[in-house]
Amino acid sequence: MRLATLLGPDLDALKADPEALREAFEEFHPEDVAELLEDLPEAQVIELLEALPSKISADVVERLSPDRQIVVMRGLRKESAAELLTEMDPDDRADFLEELEDDEAQAFLDNLEPDVVEETQELLGWDPETAGGLMTTEFVGLPPETSCGDAIEAVRKLARQGEVETVSYIYVIGFGNKLLGVVSLRDLILADPADTLADIMTEKVVSVKPTDDQELVARVIAKYDLTAVPVVDEMDGMLGVVTVDDVVDVVIEEATEDAQMMGGVVPLEDSYFSTGLLEFIWKRGAWLIVLFLGQLLTATVMEANESVLQSTVELALFIPLIISSGGNAGSQSSTLIIRAMSLGEAKPSDWWRVFAREILIGLALGLILGTMGFGRAWFTDGAIAPESLAATVGLSIVSVVTLSTIIGSLLPMIIKKLGLDPAVSSTPFIASVVDVLGLLVYFSIAHLILRGLMG
Amino acid sequence: MRLATLLGPDLDALKADPEALREAFEEFHPEDVAELLEDLPEAQVIELLEALPSKISADVVERLSPDRQIVVMRGLRKESAAELLTEMDPDDRADFLEELEDDEAQAFLDNLEPDVVEETQELLGWDPETAGGLMTTEFVGLPPETSCGDAIEAVRKLARQGEVETVSYIYVIGFGNKLLGVVSLRDLILADPADTLADIMTEKVVSVKPTDDQELVARVIAKYDLTAVPVVDEMDGMLGVVTVDDVVDVVIEEATEDAQMMGGVVPLEDSYFSTGLLEFIWKRGAWLIVLFLGQLLTATVMEANESVLQSTVELALFIPLIISSGGNAGSQSSTLIIRAMSLGEAKPSDWWRVFAREILIGLALGLILGTMGFGRAWFTDGAIAPESLAATVGLSIVSVVTLSTIIGSLLPMIIKKLGLDPAVSSTPFIASVVDVLGLLVYFSIAHLILRGLMG
Repeated sequence: MRLATLLGPDLDALKADPEALREAFEEFHPEDVAELLEDLPEAQVIELLEALPSKISADVVERLSPDRQIVVMRGLRKESAAELLTEMDPDDRADFLEELEDDEAQAFLDNLEPDVVEETQELLGWDPETAGGLMTTEFVGLPPETSCGDAIEAVRKLARQGEVETVSYIYVIGFGNKLLGVVSLRDLILADPADTLADIMTEKVVSVKPTDDQELVARVIAKYDLTAVPVVDEMDGMLGVVTVDDVVDVVIEEATEDAQMMGGVVPLEDSYFSTGLLEFIWKRGAWLIVLFLGQLLTATVMEANESVLQSTVELALFIPLIISSGGNAGSQSSTLIIRAMSLGEAKPSDWWRVFAREILIGLALGLILGTMGFGRAWFTDGAIAPESLAATVGLSIVSVVTLSTIIGSLLPMIIKKLGLDPAVSSTPFIASVVDVLGLLVYFSIAHLILRGLMG
Repeated sequence: MRLATLLGPDLDALKADPEALREAFEEFHPEDVAELLEDLPEAQVIELLEALPSKISADVVERLSPDRQIVVMRGLRKESAAELLTEMDPDDRADFLEELEDDEAQAFLDNLEPDVVEETQELLGWDPETAGGLMTTEFVGLPPETSCGDAIEAVRKLARQGEVETVSYIYVIGFGNKLLGVVSLRDLILADPADTLADIMTEKVVSVKPTDDQELVARVIAKYDLTAVPVVDEMDGMLGVVTVDDVVDVVIEEATEDAQMMGGVVPLEDSYFSTGLLEFIWKRGAWLIVLFLGQLLTATVMEANESVLQSTVELALFIPLIISSGGNAGSQSSTLIIRAMSLGEAKPSDWWRVFAREILIGLALGLILGTMGFGRAWFTDGAIAPESLAATVGLSIVSVVTLSTIIGSLLPMIIKKLGLDPAVSSTPFIASVVDVLGLLVYFSIAHLILRGLMG
């Protein structure tokens, strides 16, 4: 049976027989069901989720977009919503409640069992973009003296109850909830059933702190090829586990957010086609207006030098070339540094090393482009001597490219140091800063070189 | 014992006792050992790898950078190299050989057992950036009639031999190597030992084709929260498995590559600080020179309009403002579309939908900025009537912003359609195209509006 058919005319027949309905849905991946429910009429979705066992409904609702989740949960009967929330993975439950106003979240919490409320509130205490915000509290934790045979039994029981998100690792927890070691399920089934967990556990456990940024968690999981990483407090007390599937989502989301910010767009909440025109106009317009206001300075600088342009119109010819070369060079260095920082390769404290490299690279690139610009200007007819114009243009390009390279690399580090996301120093932002500075440099050099000529 | 100490003075003592050496190294994660070996003198690394059991050496060498791998493998004795290659995961072995010239790779292959050679050559046949290039051939595959009890025994045996990279899933393989279903290790330990795999397997298996691009594989793994995805041929014949740890690396690498390309840099092979100055100058300079050559057209367009500028110098004042507004708007739309394509949200065949949206967004943004530009130009003193200058500037901004938005969104789709990476239509590239077009638009509008005034 195809999924679309199942949600069509057959559904009414199936709803009469809950067992058949459950079986029909178990055949499909909850992700595919969620994708379909994203676009169905609200009332139909709610009716369906009420009819399905809450375990299946929870798997589907966990995968809906935040907006859809809110609409659906508001539409369900109170008891169904409470059952469904209880069945959801704790991290998904916390993520959902995070999206609501405080009083509405509290209203949902009021209908849950005290232990579920406590579990959820612990998770809600952490910033959503940290290890604490990503972690789930459902993991297999056993005392060190457990025999491997008993441990397998325990894993079996927990997995059967659907109480744990991942069984790839068994965490060995000692006195005071302290994380002592880890045993992979693979090692567990290999071990002699009479051995204890303490005998076979790995004691050097790679772990993260709950306040660690999600990008750091992703780097740790990627580096050590883990499928889950434990989250521990300062005393090595076990708090939860971040699983690799959440981390893959984080890496993709962060890359999209960075790319959009670096392109000068306020990051979108939804996919390109699900974002409305008005939201686009606002999220792109906001930055464009700020940049435009900054760029108005270029007109001011030009106005201040109007008399120079009037007497030596040849100077105007090279303005687009010079400011764009600066923009391009600055865009390159800012992109490299922003990416290096989000990969953890560079930190603001490395500014001196970065500066030393970028000044050399900027000079080299400036000399190459400056020579080309010198040549082009030489062959321009005009009132002033070709060598003077060529020297002005060439020297300006060297200076502007070097300056832009340095600004492009240092500005993101300064912004990061101020506690902001370095990706706000987007390519258009760097280009705008560099445009204004580029004009100032160009006119200053022109004044120096052409002073004699212009009297 | 700390790892650094272990590689220091204690090493010579340990080398006398192979068993103690092995035990000492087993305590550390191979990733951490690899990180340290990255910077040690070559001879010392080779000596150490020769002394360690080849299983441990292989785990470490798999994690070295490609350059370091080559240096080390060339330095090992032939037999050690062969042993080490045999112990390496097949996908890592293939990746290493891929880095070498054909005859050198063949020389390494000549020393391996025929079955290892065959396994490796199958993997080498696939493009490294596809599912085939990422997959490993070490997975647990069992016939459908296997009982769950026997299956656990088989997993145990394979895992003990270290013959499989992942045991999270057991693939159920039927006649003609056909993939029939999948059983998670979790379901297997839950099942009644007397049940067969056919009884408990999931038949709807999410799989990929060997020719699927690695970005698609990453999207599938992320979407369905998998820790591994099987790779099958057109007849559902099982070829291998891609594991989530490789996919996390791919997602991070692709995001870095995209970001660098979009910033106008030829993607780096290494991290920012491990890339040499000359390589930087080349990888940044190449694009800067191409862009500069294109930008020379701006000087040509300006030259062609020199007489207009001479008679109406006020026109020059707004050139940086107008071309930069176009560049910024184009940079936004290209970033959004490039990212949407790499997330699979948009395809080149969606061009019409994208065009319809972007023309509206571009017009709206153009009208906002155009109005601001109109106001600024109105208050400029000069020889021409303020309303004429204001109309020229305002209308030019509306046109340039709209045009740039459309170009920024369609160009990446055209480039993708041509089979190239859309990220080559980098922000600087779009900005350069838009600079030249922007000047042409500006001067055309000026001609139309100011014709009467300039005679």
